[in-house]
Amino acid sequence: MNKIAVLTSGGDAPGMNAAIRAVVRRGIFKGLDVYGVKNGYDGLMTGNFIQMDLGSVGDILHRGGTILYSARSERFKTADGQQQALAQLMEVGIDGLVVIGGDGSFKGAGKLTAQGFPTIGIPGTIDNDIAGTDYTIGFDTAVNTAVEAIDKIRDTASSHERTYVIEVMGRDAGDIALWAGMCAGAESIIIPEANYEINDMIDRIKQGHERGKLHSIIVVAEGVCKGTDIGNMIEEKTGFDTRVAVLGHFQRGGSPTAYDRMMSSQMGAKAVDLLVEGKKGVMVGVKNGQLIYTPFEEAAKDRHTIDMSIYHLARSLSI
Amino acid sequence: MNKIAVLTSGGDAPGMNAAIRAVVRRGIFKGLDVYGVKNGYDGLMTGNFIQMDLGSVGDILHRGGTILYSARSERFKTADGQQQALAQLMEVGIDGLVVIGGDGSFKGAGKLTAQGFPTIGIPGTIDNDIAGTDYTIGFDTAVNTAVEAIDKIRDTASSHERTYVIEVMGRDAGDIALWAGMCAGAESIIIPEANYEINDMIDRIKQGHERGKLHSIIVVAEGVCKGTDIGNMIEEKTGFDTRVAVLGHFQRGGSPTAYDRMMSSQMGAKAVDLLVEGKKGVMVGVKNGQLIYTPFEEAAKDRHTIDMSIYHLARSLSI
Amino acid sequence: MNKIAVLTSGGDAPGMNAAIRAVVRRGIFKGLDVYGVKNGYDGLMTGNFIQMDLGSVGDILHRGGTILYSARSERFKTADGQQQALAQLMEVGIDGLVVIGGDGSFKGAGKLTAQGFPTIGIPGTIDNDIAGTDYTIGFDTAVNTAVEAIDKIRDTASSHERTYVIEVMGRDAGDIALWAGMCAGAESIIIPEANYEINDMIDRIKQGHERGKLHSIIVVAEGVCKGTDIGNMIEEKTGFDTRVAVLGHFQRGGSPTAYDRMMSSQMGAKAVDLLVEGKKGVMVGVKNGQLIYTPFEEAAKDRHTIDMSIYHLARSLSI
Amino acid sequence: MNKIAVLTSGGDAPGMNAAIRAVVRRGIFKGLDVYGVKNGYDGLMTGNFIQMDLGSVGDILHRGGTILYSARSERFKTADGQQQALAQLMEVGIDGLVVIGGDGSFKGAGKLTAQGFPTIGIPGTIDNDIAGTDYTIGFDTAVNTAVEAIDKIRDTASSHERTYVIEVMGRDAGDIALWAGMCAGAESIIIPEANYEINDMIDRIKQGHERGKLHSIIVVAEGVCKGTDIGNMIEEKTGFDTRVAVLGHFQRGGSPTAYDRMMSSQMGAKAVDLLVEGKKGVMVGVKNGQLIYTPFEEAAKDRHTIDMSIYHLARSLSI
Repeated sequence: MNKIAVLTSGGDAPGMNAAIRAVVRRGIFKGLDVYGVKNGYDGLMTGNFIQMDLGSVGDILHRGGTILYSARSERFKTADGQQQALAQLMEVGIDGLVVIGGDGSFKGAGKLTAQGFPTIGIPGTIDNDIAGTDYTIGFDTAVNTAVEAIDKIRDTASSHERTYVIEVMGRDAGDIALWAGMCAGAESIIIPEANYEINDMIDRIKQGHERGKLHSIIVVAEGVCKGTDIGNMIEEKTGFDTRVAVLGHFQRGGSPTAYDRMMSSQMGAKAVDLLVEGKKGVMVGVKNGQLIYTPFEEAAKDRHTIDMSIYHLARSLSI
Repeated sequence: MNKIAVLTSGGDAPGMNAAIRAVVRRGIFKGLDVYGVKNGYDGLMTGNFIQMDLGSVGDILHRGGTILYSARSERFKTADGQQQALAQLMEVGIDGLVVIGGDGSFKGAGKLTAQGFPTIGIPGTIDNDIAGTDYTIGFDTAVNTAVEAIDKIRDTASSHERTYVIEVMGRDAGDIALWAGMCAGAESIIIPEANYEINDMIDRIKQGHERGKLHSIIVVAEGVCKGTDIGNMIEEKTGFDTRVAVLGHFQRGGSPTAYDRMMSSQMGAKAVDLLVEGKKGVMVGVKNGQLIYTPFEEAAKDRHTIDMSIYHLARSLSI
Repeated sequence: MNKIAVLTSGGDAPGMNAAIRAVVRRGIFKGLDVYGVKNGYDGLMTGNFIQMDLGSVGDILHRGGTILYSARSERFKTADGQQQALAQLMEVGIDGLVVIGGDGSFKGAGKLTAQGFPTIGIPGTIDNDIAGTDYTIGFDTAVNTAVEAIDKIRDTASSHERTYVIEVMGRDAGDIALWAGMCAGAESIIIPEANYEINDMIDRIKQGHERGKLHSIIVVAEGVCKGTDIGNMIEEKTGFDTRVAVLGHFQRGGSPTAYDRMMSSQMGAKAVDLLVEGKKGVMVGVKNGQLIYTPFEEAAKDRHTIDMSIYHLARSLSI
Repeated sequence: MNKIAVLTSGGDAPGMNAAIRAVVRRGIFKGLDVYGVKNGYDGLMTGNFIQMDLGSVGDILHRGGTILYSARSERFKTADGQQQALAQLMEVGIDGLVVIGGDGSFKGAGKLTAQGFPTIGIPGTIDNDIAGTDYTIGFDTAVNTAVEAIDKIRDTASSHERTYVIEVMGRDAGDIALWAGMCAGAESIIIPEANYEINDMIDRIKQGHERGKLHSIIVVAEGVCKGTDIGNMIEEKTGFDTRVAVLGHFQRGGSPTAYDRMMSSQMGAKAVDLLVEGKKGVMVGVKNGQLIYTPFEEAAKDRHTIDMSIYHLARSLSI
């Protein structure tokens, strides 16, 4: 292994820059040349490579987004696209590739490895929806961003004795909703992984009201339904003044939290170490607080699971 | 003047607690008894009063929302409701009332003063839409909250080379949009106070794109139209990947900024001083950086005006 | 188990309120009466108890500090003080006690349990210096606070091409320094758990300077020495303009991060569950991402260990 | 006027980048070529110029520090240094210079103008200590940063019933201390512009304690004395547990607030407009909320004055 490259793919997430920095610095520390690929797989197919030196990743650890840009590529899903990418990698003499992205991105990386080219995946998405890891880059920041927004809404909810329904991101996964709801003290949390009983939710709101609660906050994952759907149901069934807030794309951005910087740095360095050790076709991850790695196929077979003990705990604490 | 009361009315705004604290502490400093009225005019009619001592407003200066709660009251708009309020004030022996709220709230206060009861208004709304003052409580915090959210969205916009349309609050006024747009470096700002030319906006986006800008950010005031309307138009006319973010109710909450705390404190104290001096039926305000006061009727005649020089400046800086 | 009590002891930490809320709500959920003890062990000896209902812990999840106040008590260290505390607990009929604090606090709790009274400890200190757990309440918030401050200092360091030495808290442990240094991209991190070579540090600063780095940031744990000592050494040996910033007590405060809220809630609930199950004399903790518990004596025998792999990683990434 | 240049000098301040952006963009908008000078007057003497295009100031509006770097130069104070600077300006054909900095920096600019070279000053320093303007770039951000830190310390102060002395920046001016103290609800504020009576301060602390206040916060400007001096006096005279926090250099950094971005943008653009109109030797400023300009000599004659009405208001509100 002499030359490696790194790209970001899929939706951006805070901490991706920290991971890029770690790949570059660890690579150089290990005596490798490191290249950055711009615009994800698009840049891989067109040979949009730049050599990265130590200074090229200076002052990016604390920045959201990704300095390498990210994009989704339809063409890379074709055998033709993959061949072209391999040709570009050969031309520059690159021996290994680190892909920071979601499971779609790892499918692509797996295709390259199937043809013998070493790739390592790093899970990067705010949604925490990847099997084979308890944590994905950006999740901690996204949760904190959502919690801060809900804390602010609580001021208004409390001042006006209102019910608020707050829709958060997460695609098909309820992790952001579950964490944000638990950490913001939501009365109910509605996630795809648990059936919700509208009557149960209504009962909880009414009980809270009866014991003098000044506001109710319901957090709903975008993977379940629109926040307005829930809001309308509540207003209809309780008559309480109910408002809906959709926390949008700002959940994807911002300076990464300490935890996101730490884990991104560790996973970035680990990816390089694995390449140097001759590993390929695996995704770095975190399980029970430890860095691990899993073959892409194995991760792809599983479905990401959510920690339902948090769900039940949240219910017992928001009585 | 021996006993005064204070209430918050209309939408809550960060800094209202700082103003309440200032009214209470300044009142006691001036030798007055001070009462808080809960739930705005509703509490005024039902006599929901509590005497406030120095400690009752401890540790609230930095909190969003309003510890006195706020509500809109239809009944207070009737002569009957106003009589009832006056009766409650008499019963406790209250001589003067400070109303923190928007222009609807001042209309109500004016009705009491028309019957001889001294009232002073303090402009409290994040929208900055009140005539007779350059600034309303909560505006600075709301602008900063919007700017921080747009800064985060910029990370994603830049990483994905996207156009973002961001809808901000402000009711019929464009002040939040104008300040947030200027301070976040938006390419275009769409406000009710200026006609917007869709073609001009499109041209600016395209020009930016041509000179290599990685993203375009368009800020639109909710008083103009839905963000999605603008987003659809842009996508149709440019073909660029365009996303819409509606910054919702979290713009109303949060810990007030230093400026909001400072001005709320000054206006709260000024309201008490005016009552003590025998003034009534006036709203405290800020003009050219100075504390002033204006009769309710005079303020009601005017319309709040926006500083269009900022609008033109923003256009020259976002080329 | 019918009645339990909860107190906070030692230095306050963000998340203590979240833990108190969890103890109260989980206790009531389990059918118990729950009491709060004010001012730590002082209040235990004087019977400063208040019964807590669901609403008493409303709106505190997101607040720093501790609503039960905290204090250090010399008298409770005596057999006499402990007898008095037991007498007070008997009088109210309390069956179990949850102590949120540091290892000094657990020593006290152990004394009560040695006399047969059930106590459970929850590790609460920003310093992360307690054996038997990977995490203590407030650590995540303190690290983020330190990182945000260093991010700001970096602006100035970079604008003026300066070296900054930043002293962070942590008492005898280097955890805050290690995390903050890693997450803020410090050139060198000086912690009690590793010998530091002043020449090595100087070499790193000079090398960075030679390859064009605009600033160097050195993070030093208060447990090693004063920041000014390091600053003077650097200035003497390099001649570079060097400034020192001591991040003081604001590291202890602030609204807890999502992670601190989550773990505090889990540990608070776990403490109640353990009391109900009949456990006593144990501390709740987190190991490898899982909630565990350890007898006080066992925890007391060990010394908290730091994750040196982070230290070595940081060195390889800040080349 | 065809070619202008801009430099930053003295201590950096949040909003300097926003001002640089405004100078560059407004200059280009007005048809000028704009150059950036690196490292303040040092770069002026060595001809360290770079031409700035629209993109060169993209994505800097929200960043602290200064992309042009800043430095203090002894040599530029000599006639020789000034001649050299003029020679460099001639060589590139630059017709006008915008200097962002403090009054020391304007003295330098005045020397160039005395020799016929047009210069315009923009007040940039967090200290707000410049005569001829009510506001300097970075002041609003620095105050907010200090207030946020004090808010955090209040959590601990309140949990432990302690007195805290907090030393803030400001050089010889008390503005940061006055605003931060007022906005954070400090019991006493100690500034160079007002004599402080130690006994009066002690009385206020004791009175607060008697009426049940859980903490006292004293803010002291660095221009008066060390925070520890005050802390020692308080502890000696009251016996209360007193801690000192020195808010250091992080007050200089961070992303600028909305107000700082707005005023920096307006002042940057105004400076260009003034150059184009043929003005020279003047400093842009803000008086009573309006943009104004003042000849350097006139500003130099006056001393910056602080708004003592805030001081007296703060005393009446912190009873």
